[in-house]
This record gives sequence, C-alpha cells and structure tokens, in this order.
Amino acid sequence: MPARIGKYTLELNSKPVILGFASVVGKKECEGPLGKLYDQCHTDTTLGESSWEKAESRLQNEAVSLALYKAGVKNTDIDCIFAGDLLNQCISSTFGLRNLNIPFLGQYGACSTMAQTLAIASIFTESGAAKRAVAVTSSHFCSAERQFRLPLEYGGQRTPTAQWTATASGAIVVGTGEQKSGNKISVESVTFGRITDYGIKDAANMGAAMAPAAAQTLTDYLSDTGASPKDFDLILTGDLGSIGSELMEKILTKDGIDITAVHNDCGLMIYDRVKQDVHAGGSGCGCSGAVLCSIVMQQLAAGEMHKVLFIGTGALMSPTSTQQGESIPGVAHLVYLKS
Amino acid sequence: MPARIGKYTLELNSKPVILGFASVVGKKECEGPLGKLYDQCHTDTTLGESSWEKAESRLQNEAVSLALYKAGVKNTDIDCIFAGDLLNQCISSTFGLRNLNIPFLGQYGACSTMAQTLAIASIFTESGAAKRAVAVTSSHFCSAERQFRLPLEYGGQRTPTAQWTATASGAIVVGTGEQKSGNKISVESVTFGRITDYGIKDAANMGAAMAPAAAQTLTDYLSDTGASPKDFDLILTGDLGSIGSELMEKILTKDGIDITAVHNDCGLMIYDRVKQDVHAGGSGCGCSGAVLCSIVMQQLAAGEMHKVLFIGTGALMSPTSTQQGESIPGVAHLVYLKS
Repeated sequence: MPARIGKYTLELNSKPVILGFASVVGKKECEGPLGKLYDQCHTDTTLGESSWEKAESRLQNEAVSLALYKAGVKNTDIDCIFAGDLLNQCISSTFGLRNLNIPFLGQYGACSTMAQTLAIASIFTESGAAKRAVAVTSSHFCSAERQFRLPLEYGGQRTPTAQWTATASGAIVVGTGEQKSGNKISVESVTFGRITDYGIKDAANMGAAMAPAAAQTLTDYLSDTGASPKDFDLILTGDLGSIGSELMEKILTKDGIDITAVHNDCGLMIYDRVKQDVHAGGSGCGCSGAVLCSIVMQQLAAGEMHKVLFIGTGALMSPTSTQQGESIPGVAHLVYLKS
Repeated sequence: MPARIGKYTLELNSKPVILGFASVVGKKECEGPLGKLYDQCHTDTTLGESSWEKAESRLQNEAVSLALYKAGVKNTDIDCIFAGDLLNQCISSTFGLRNLNIPFLGQYGACSTMAQTLAIASIFTESGAAKRAVAVTSSHFCSAERQFRLPLEYGGQRTPTAQWTATASGAIVVGTGEQKSGNKISVESVTFGRITDYGIKDAANMGAAMAPAAAQTLTDYLSDTGASPKDFDLILTGDLGSIGSELMEKILTKDGIDITAVHNDCGLMIYDRVKQDVHAGGSGCGCSGAVLCSIVMQQLAAGEMHKVLFIGTGALMSPTSTQQGESIPGVAHLVYLKS
C-alpha cells in the first residue's frame, strides 16, 4: 500500500517496476540530438494516414505496441491503460488504442500527461488494482497547430517565447515483476500537483504559465520527504522550454532551493534549439513522453543515472478560455524513478 | 487492497464510503421530474457569468463546495480530486476547481466521467493513496451545443435520436469514515470498460454508439462475479436515452441477460421526454452526475434501495473525428453501490 509522506507525497512501498518503455517520433525529432535513441522514427509525419489526427493516433498505437513487445507481454496481460493527449476529447488516445481491448481510462493533464498517467498507473499496480498497467501519451505538431493556433498553410510567424509541439509518443508498461534487460527501474514515489495560476495570459508563452506549478510540486516533494536537489542525478521537467525553465529556477532560488546543477527540461533536450529553429524549445505531451521513454529510461537502465525526479507540467487552457480572456493555470505531477 | 474478481472486476475490500454528494442544475433540469431533489437549482443558465463555459465551471465549483459541506469536510481534508467534462481540454473542471488547492487529476471519459472519476477515487481511497477524494463532473447545454453541434442562434432542427445535454453537475466525496446522515453507502466494486466500436457514425445518435459498451461492461461484471440482474434494485446507465437503452437491452437479451425489470437510464429520468421536448432523453456528463447525486444516492441513504449498479457510458468522439469520417467508439465503467 502507498504511504503518505507529508501532505502531498505518496511513497510506493512495493516499488512498481518499469517493465517496458518505447518512444516513437517524427522526422524533426529524429533529426534532433536524441535521434538515435528512439525506438522508431518516421520520416513522413503523416505516417501514411489520411489526417494528422490519425497520424497521431498511430504514434500512440505504435508506442504501446513496442512497449508491450519490449516488456515481453501482450495486450491481454494488461489490466488497464491510462492514456491522454492534447486533442479535443483526447481522440488520439481513443482511436489509437481502441483495437487493444484493454480497459481504458482517458486522462487529461495537458503536457503533464506522461507524469499523470505513469503516476496513476503506478498507484494502481502498487495497490493491486492492476498487475500491469500502461501509461501513454502523444502529441503531433500539425494536429496541435491547427487546433490550438493557426492553420499551417497560413505560415504565421512564431513568437520568440513559443515552443514547438513535438510529433512524438511515449509509452510505459509498469507493474510487478522483472524487466527483461538492464538495471531494474522502480517508481519510488509520486506527488500530485495542485493547480497554480499566476495570471499569465499569453498562450504563446506556456513555459511561463507552467513554471510556478512545477516549482510548487517540486517544493511540495522536497518539503514532504526532506530530500534536497543534490540527492538526484536529474530533476527533469517537461516541458517548460527555455523561458519556463529559467523562471522555475528563479522561483525556487527565491525559496532557497537551487536545482541548476541537476535540472534539465525535456523541451530543451529534444531539439537543437539553434539549428532546428524551435525558439523556446519543444512541448506537447509527446515531448516529455518520448524524452522520458528514450534517453532517461535508457540511462537509468544502463546505470548511468540512478535517481531521477520527473515532473510533467501542463498548461490547462483551451483556445476558447484564452479567447474569453482567461489566464492559463498550470499543473505539475512528479514521479521519482530509481535504478 | 482491491481484489481482482474474474478478468475485469475489482472488489474493494475496505468498502470506501460516500461521505457526501451534491447536485447543481439549471432551469430545464429543475423543471423536470427530479426538480425537488437537487441541492441547488439555477433559474438563469448563465449563473450570472459572462460565458456558458464559465457558467459550467461554476456549476462544478458549487457542486464540489456543497458536497464538501454535506460531508462535513473542508478542501484541505481532500487528498485529490478527479474531475472531467465534455469541453475541449476539460476547461470547466480546470477553471471551476483551480481555487480549491487540491491535487488535481483531470479525467476524460465523455459521458462516462461520473463513473470513471468515482471508480478511480474509490480505488485511491481503498488503497490508501487518498484518505478522502472527490469525484466530479459537469455539462452545460449551451457550451456543449456550440462546441459539438451548431451555434444556438442558428436554431437548427434536432433529430429524433438526439439527446439533450443537461446543464448540471454532480460531485461526490468518497473516503474512509462515516457519512453524516442516512444509511451508509459504500462502493463495493468497480469494473473498468474496454472501448467498443460497432461502426456507428451518426453523431446525433450517441445512445446507439454507447449501448454496446454498456452491454459489454455489464456482461463483464456479471460474468466476473456470478451475479444476476435480479440481485440489484437498479441497474442504472447514464446516458443512453431511449434509443440506446432499448439497444442495450436487446444486445443483452441476445446473450440471455434480461435487465428490463431493473434497468433505468439517467437520460430517461432527468427530463419529462414528452412535455420537455428532449427527443431521445438527456445526456452529458452532468446528467448522470446529477441523477446519481440526487435521487439515487438519496434513495440509497434512505434505505429505499440497497444495491445499485451504476454504469457511466461515454461516446469517445470529437467533431473533428466525425468530420474525418470516423465511427464513434464507446466506453462504459461500472460502480457497484450498496447501502
């Protein structure tokens, strides 16, 4: 059973294990610094489908299939799947996973979805509600642009604070048992975040909107557990980009917490910001999904890192809420991974 | 710890308790057959807000506040809140609940959301991941019409198979401990549904799209537990309406399961179908939320019923998926309530 430490953190006593993980990405992500580490790269961002939404569904389907294969299990071995994405009514997840015949629980945490799905899946396996569960998320540059911003054909100028939605998916099988190869990676604890709202209204500056939530959840975790940033090899946010990362570090410094030596952000890792012209960095649920399910999990499995705090950050807005003058609240969920 | 019975059902051994519940509705719902049973009725469907989306957020906020009050607890007593709605990026939940300062986990199950949030909240309390958790959902006729269908101003003719999205919210506090008054209502078990897809493509006939999912989840539950429909005072679906209810009963009859004596549907209970001109009945997450959190919970608490299977049903589509020629997959989650 999970044990509550402090006010917000749950320690998972049975230490659910990452049985398998996989990442599937598009062309631009493949050309980025982590290109060789993904399980699957697509050179055609339509993935041969007739729409970008269907392409995104396919990303999820492939990521889950690969994660199951790498875990050495079948869809019938999975008790439930936690899935979410950025599209209206989470259709990438629905249509991508409908043929799997696994009990399906749709999640919406914006770009915090990889952390949210992994955290809930871990609690389900910890508690015995599931022997094995899958956590998955995705995003697609083209489906996100047309839904949240402008038609691609319009060729609008992007602001310097804008982030580039990754065409990517990450999937994880979590459960009891042993992973097939590499050091055992376990989920040690999770901290669910509260909604924060600093009144940011610029939908082209999501990093700034999410930074306070990331800072709050990390502060909650450190205060609950008595840990300090130097106890970890990596504190990984996803996806604050350059502006949000700097802001988060500033907020924490004001509270006497210095994470600069161990902090990195999925949005800063996925692209070469200068050569790939992505302005403030990457974003989208698939960005943190694919970074977590490639280099981070691989380094944990190889023993190159042992203690990672993964903090998924989400901006909880819609084009409608922005048009109605609303601010952009943020939320962040934390998962502590250890190998 | 939850114990798995059969393939899909989880028995909750600690029997999480419904500590409080509340329903808040709009004018049309108040004029319906359950009008006197809601905690709060609004005669102005804007709730004094400047947009329908903000009105819907307010419905959720009020429902949660009332449920907390009726449970005799404060927001600081709640470990996490599971919330979802039909709007793009679930903004009713985000903006309605952002001031509560409770760890927030956004859920998307379309109209199955009341069952999904209640089931996950119950597993969290069962497993010790939360001492108390809140499950909440909402819908609003006007925000749903303009997002999913046509601008209200257009005055489009509704098809006979169409359902009327309820302006309503239901909220439940679930946890360990005792409820303040009435018979104790406990969550005995839950069954999470798999996505089904019978190829229905008519977005004005959601009941038919969701019926197969409801039939499948109920069949899973009965087969897992060996129970039969006559063991229950009520098998309550939400929201299939008249067409979906009839179809579900037909599918089950083909499999030798007769639920007609104990079956009712939230979409058939919330309005007077003839006098209120709602065609196939009510729908929207708030419909099953408000029906469950009024007459059903009240009758359980009063001992007028003792055993209720609540099956939330969701149509997992978006206007985009429909425009792209996709079918409408359904999902249904089951919660067994006992007093």
